[in-house]
Amino acid sequence: MEMVIKKDCFAKAVSDVCRAISFKSSMPVLTGIKLVVIENGLVIVGSNSDIFIEKTIPSFADGVKVLDIIETGSVVISAKYLSEIVKKLSGDIRLRVKNESSVTLASDDVVVNFNGFHAEEYPHLPNMMGADYCKVGWLDLVEMIKQTVFAASANDYHPVLSGVCMTFREKYLSIAATNSHRLAFKKIPLVCEINNNVIVPSKTLHELIKLLNNETEDIHIFITENHIGFKANNVSLFSRLIGGIYPNIDGLLSQQCKTSITLNKNRFLKGIDRACLFASEWKNNNVHIEMQGGIELIISSAATEVGKIRETQPVLKVDGDPEFKITLNGDFLVSALKVIKEDNVIMYFNGHMRPVLIEPVGNSSYYYLISPVRSN
Amino acid sequence: MEMVIKKDCFAKAVSDVCRAISFKSSMPVLTGIKLVVIENGLVIVGSNSDIFIEKTIPSFADGVKVLDIIETGSVVISAKYLSEIVKKLSGDIRLRVKNESSVTLASDDVVVNFNGFHAEEYPHLPNMMGADYCKVGWLDLVEMIKQTVFAASANDYHPVLSGVCMTFREKYLSIAATNSHRLAFKKIPLVCEINNNVIVPSKTLHELIKLLNNETEDIHIFITENHIGFKANNVSLFSRLIGGIYPNIDGLLSQQCKTSITLNKNRFLKGIDRACLFASEWKNNNVHIEMQGGIELIISSAATEVGKIRETQPVLKVDGDPEFKITLNGDFLVSALKVIKEDNVIMYFNGHMRPVLIEPVGNSSYYYLISPVRSN
Repeated sequence: MEMVIKKDCFAKAVSDVCRAISFKSSMPVLTGIKLVVIENGLVIVGSNSDIFIEKTIPSFADGVKVLDIIETGSVVISAKYLSEIVKKLSGDIRLRVKNESSVTLASDDVVVNFNGFHAEEYPHLPNMMGADYCKVGWLDLVEMIKQTVFAASANDYHPVLSGVCMTFREKYLSIAATNSHRLAFKKIPLVCEINNNVIVPSKTLHELIKLLNNETEDIHIFITENHIGFKANNVSLFSRLIGGIYPNIDGLLSQQCKTSITLNKNRFLKGIDRACLFASEWKNNNVHIEMQGGIELIISSAATEVGKIRETQPVLKVDGDPEFKITLNGDFLVSALKVIKEDNVIMYFNGHMRPVLIEPVGNSSYYYLISPVRSN
Repeated sequence: MEMVIKKDCFAKAVSDVCRAISFKSSMPVLTGIKLVVIENGLVIVGSNSDIFIEKTIPSFADGVKVLDIIETGSVVISAKYLSEIVKKLSGDIRLRVKNESSVTLASDDVVVNFNGFHAEEYPHLPNMMGADYCKVGWLDLVEMIKQTVFAASANDYHPVLSGVCMTFREKYLSIAATNSHRLAFKKIPLVCEINNNVIVPSKTLHELIKLLNNETEDIHIFITENHIGFKANNVSLFSRLIGGIYPNIDGLLSQQCKTSITLNKNRFLKGIDRACLFASEWKNNNVHIEMQGGIELIISSAATEVGKIRETQPVLKVDGDPEFKITLNGDFLVSALKVIKEDNVIMYFNGHMRPVLIEPVGNSSYYYLISPVRSN
């Protein structure tokens, strides 16, 4: 195997596939990057065995030759060292592999010898042949993920809740995420051949967003029994799915509501954020929300020793009972309000021990449920 | 005590004095910020008992009224909560103190109540009355500090070496820093009334640089038996000195030299930086430097399992023996080369077991010594 490649192009691709790699993997070959030179390009793969990222560099990019293929072949070399050294070089990079224990990378007057691994030792990518698939706009997908994934459980006590539930139906795609104390849900219309719901690890979606940061095209999503694949131009991410049954969320939306209020989203977010400061010593970030007489909302919290905060905010609109009092986890509120783009939000209250529903005004594709905190 | 103050002005000052504060101090009053409203301004103090930072806000800044004093007085309130909440407010801030347990901070519709401390409990600033002092240009002082302080010991095994030695003489100021394996030294001409040398904690100088980041005027330096003070317009930093005798460094500069070579600084820095990558598994970051025949310098290093790197660099000028070989701590080299601004450096070699001296070409005010590493 032998090739000459533009430094910037190689560095970017190596850095991208490194996202999937755990440098401390107990399987030595997985601490490496797999490089495969084929007839018309270079394929680079990184993996932690749960997630695979594959990037293809064709010989020409935007009409400019970036890769000169001298001999096809493959090898695996240390991801950590390769990604670092490539950043620190300046000229074109020549990579030559005699065998896996004699890999030479040269650029200007710098010569690096790597002890590599045989590419055959590297795990195979999940087989997506014949998988169901659908196509979704990149920006739509990113927004869906950003508006939901934060609500999943941050720990692995309930593996199912550490992932998000993606539901593919004939005419829509939805994503739900919950840690059992709050739930975020988003649904978009989509013409879709898949009829399935799968639980995708949160980490997979976080990595996907970072990986495809600058892509603006459509993404193809593939689903098999155990894997999901996301494919864009020249880059793919494959991930294991989480097994198990996701909680049924259909019954959670109450048909009743005692009070609904409309608030300016940014002002409300800032108020809750301030209250969170004094709530930070409490396990549930207890922030108290109260309305008296239906004109103003009172937001307050207290730290035992340091002091307390209280502020009033105008309510744009009230329906139902104009008096209520509830204690919510301030951090859960802040994280939802941050991902809502609309100017105003509606909150639906149903008593101080029932979940609160939050929706952006004028956009019924998103909702957020939050359970109250028992407060003294 | 009562005042109304512009938010941005207050937030900046609070954030600056917070640099001195340890939020986990075992002395509760030191987790607070001391606020003193005097006739014509507000004085803010933060401290961890070793370092004090004092900032004064006059009623007018650049001809604009920023502070309205209603009643003089003083109080100490939680630094962590005050600094965070002030950032999150938008309007002017009214602070009113009835007594230390009833401090009210109000801005727009937000009201915060603090339980404060009595200002009398706060430690006094070091007394600088009658202290020797001198005046030094801010940019000169910052450069001196940046070129030396990194060379001090990062741990406290030898307290003296965790600080830097500042020597004030009639016509100059010098700073030396060493961890016993490398030494950085800088000297500038200065008309100076102090005749003394003191050991200043590295942390003090790191904080000083950050604190006075945007100041471009002169700094007054005050010295007493146990303290050093740095004063600029409206801001002062005071610090304890480290007791003990600093090692005598006068005899370290050898009069002899077997070989001296001149190198392009940036190219050499990049080469050593690349070699450091493969040297990182070694305790001393073993980087090998070798010259054969006086034309090229060979830089190399090796990681046991992953591989090795080797590069050649042109030597601009050679004096003395054209053959040598030495192993140095690559990180020590990189940190020195990074703070040298000149285009070229001279390195003086005196055998593979003797310290190497590095000087910028055309600037004898700075030098750096580095002991070789024993290598197999």
